[in-house]
Amino acid sequence: MPLTFFTPGPAQLYPTFEKHLQTFVADQLGAISHRSQQYRNLHKFTVDQLRTLLNVPETHAILFLGSASEAWERILFSCVELESFHLVNGSFSKKFYDYSSALNKYAHKFEKPMGQGFSASEIDVPEYAELIAVTHNETSSGVQMPVSEIHKLKQRNPDKLIAVDMVSSAPYPDLDYNLIDTAFFSVQKAFGLPAGLGVWIVSEKCLAKAQTIKKQYSIGAHNDLPTLWKNALNNETPATPNVMGIYLLGKIAEDFNAIGVQTIRKQTEQKAAAIYKFIDRTAGFTPFVKEKAFRSQTVIVTDTEQPSSDIIKSIKDKGMVIGSGYGEFKNSQLRIANFPATSSEDVEKLLFELGKI
Amino acid sequence: MPLTFFTPGPAQLYPTFEKHLQTFVADQLGAISHRSQQYRNLHKFTVDQLRTLLNVPETHAILFLGSASEAWERILFSCVELESFHLVNGSFSKKFYDYSSALNKYAHKFEKPMGQGFSASEIDVPEYAELIAVTHNETSSGVQMPVSEIHKLKQRNPDKLIAVDMVSSAPYPDLDYNLIDTAFFSVQKAFGLPAGLGVWIVSEKCLAKAQTIKKQYSIGAHNDLPTLWKNALNNETPATPNVMGIYLLGKIAEDFNAIGVQTIRKQTEQKAAAIYKFIDRTAGFTPFVKEKAFRSQTVIVTDTEQPSSDIIKSIKDKGMVIGSGYGEFKNSQLRIANFPATSSEDVEKLLFELGKI
Repeated sequence: MPLTFFTPGPAQLYPTFEKHLQTFVADQLGAISHRSQQYRNLHKFTVDQLRTLLNVPETHAILFLGSASEAWERILFSCVELESFHLVNGSFSKKFYDYSSALNKYAHKFEKPMGQGFSASEIDVPEYAELIAVTHNETSSGVQMPVSEIHKLKQRNPDKLIAVDMVSSAPYPDLDYNLIDTAFFSVQKAFGLPAGLGVWIVSEKCLAKAQTIKKQYSIGAHNDLPTLWKNALNNETPATPNVMGIYLLGKIAEDFNAIGVQTIRKQTEQKAAAIYKFIDRTAGFTPFVKEKAFRSQTVIVTDTEQPSSDIIKSIKDKGMVIGSGYGEFKNSQLRIANFPATSSEDVEKLLFELGKI
Repeated sequence: MPLTFFTPGPAQLYPTFEKHLQTFVADQLGAISHRSQQYRNLHKFTVDQLRTLLNVPETHAILFLGSASEAWERILFSCVELESFHLVNGSFSKKFYDYSSALNKYAHKFEKPMGQGFSASEIDVPEYAELIAVTHNETSSGVQMPVSEIHKLKQRNPDKLIAVDMVSSAPYPDLDYNLIDTAFFSVQKAFGLPAGLGVWIVSEKCLAKAQTIKKQYSIGAHNDLPTLWKNALNNETPATPNVMGIYLLGKIAEDFNAIGVQTIRKQTEQKAAAIYKFIDRTAGFTPFVKEKAFRSQTVIVTDTEQPSSDIIKSIKDKGMVIGSGYGEFKNSQLRIANFPATSSEDVEKLLFELGKI
């Protein structure tokens, strides 16, 4: 029996994935040269579909990396000469912060315990920080920073660059790229694809900063921003890219555009509301994130009375896979992904079975 | 009509690729957690198959990156504090050299024109160079450095680390990992898979060096060697990996092991001999690499009397794709890949059609 995955990534593959994969194989796209017009058309198609889906203006390039973690490194190399500032409230925002220190930058942080969120008004950005690193959706804890607060944070700090990690939420957050300098995600979350591809949206301002930094410091050698950018102008990548991943992403983005991103966002909110309602009303479950404004719409975390491993096991017997808690919460929480690949009916079935636990 | 690709990468997909891809999809492996036992088993399977295929001892880890170009950067971060030394005779060996400068290392080089090769006896390694960077197979020019010369070079310079780029030749070169400190390849060449995965073979000595360098300099943040190594001990990767690529690579390596690597190497040499014989004897074709000892067995480059674009076009009409020359040789050379995915019969058919040009 095929399983339905409600795991926070790798996650359920999008229903059209197999069809697109078959086309990729039938058209022998795995063998084409990454310096051919055929590849450049494929590359451009994906960029165009993403540009439409996420409303990315021409001031920003859409670039491909091996993973979103690689984007952390490339952003720090490109946008930070000396000092970065990080909002940390979970394992992934912490890793972004750790990457900065590992590159010998001075990394500031404003840290809160897992499960808590940030508002713009409470954030003081250190004077010499060049970049504000924000995690829209903290996959480890199910905390989301409202997009309006992210925008406000930039408006209060117009001289700083702002980077948004939307790994486990894109295309849900409706970011305004007139404000957001750079953002990134990976494809094995809400896009319902196998892992192995990161997408980096990055502005001309970041490019200019990288070019300035390069005069004095290394900005990395592999996939450095100026080289990536130059290649992207020609719909190419510096190294041989994950052509299969780029192709499939373009087709899924096209499918999303056919539905309409606003519809996808509304469906996400409706499914999330059903899950939170269940958690709120059902004995044995308590939402981990107390403040409603900070509750993630895409990765929903609940405390559980009984060991979560027992629940995961029971639910797997019913043909569904849910995620365990992260780190210290492994056996006391569940993480339920709410991505476009799982329908309202899938969610209803999950909640029905969870209700019988 | 499906085409047969004799291009130097992306290249013809291996005949069993589709079968393995179907199993990957049917088993829903694109959705499994990269922190699950199921993933760790898959990861271990691939590492074990590669260890057997390439005869890699337990002193060396087998690690996964986004591409072989990423390996250039990670090797320089991990193995070079201040100075590296590069044998440069084409575009890819030049890029390895350029990466070193881009990371603010002092990069020495011994350069020869494209088409020429290196012998150990003519190479003087600068006193303070910590790493010797060797390209076993220069994809741009079709020059191979004999494995015996690579081994000799290390034996003459036992205190230096040696790195071997075997991107477009593995599993052909029979490297002795008692001598070779690190080597790497990508999967879209001789392994006949879609691009998007690099494999990095690296010794405990390199790990120790990275740990020493880290005390004073950055060794990178993403996929830094100590973190990759620690995760590999548990059959995991620090970031979500290209699970599909790793799975498929393991299955292809298993197929290669079933045939036997010595047989694959012999078949490679027999097919290469047929192609070189044709080039030597056929009017309008002249081998680019004059010295036989340096002629690549996996990427065969020939000068052409007529514009190579015309030949490529005619051959494509017959259902086969061959590579153009690289850079300045784009329209005066052909590059014919000779990987396991193309059989003796495929090669015969290609030579038959080339003979009618």
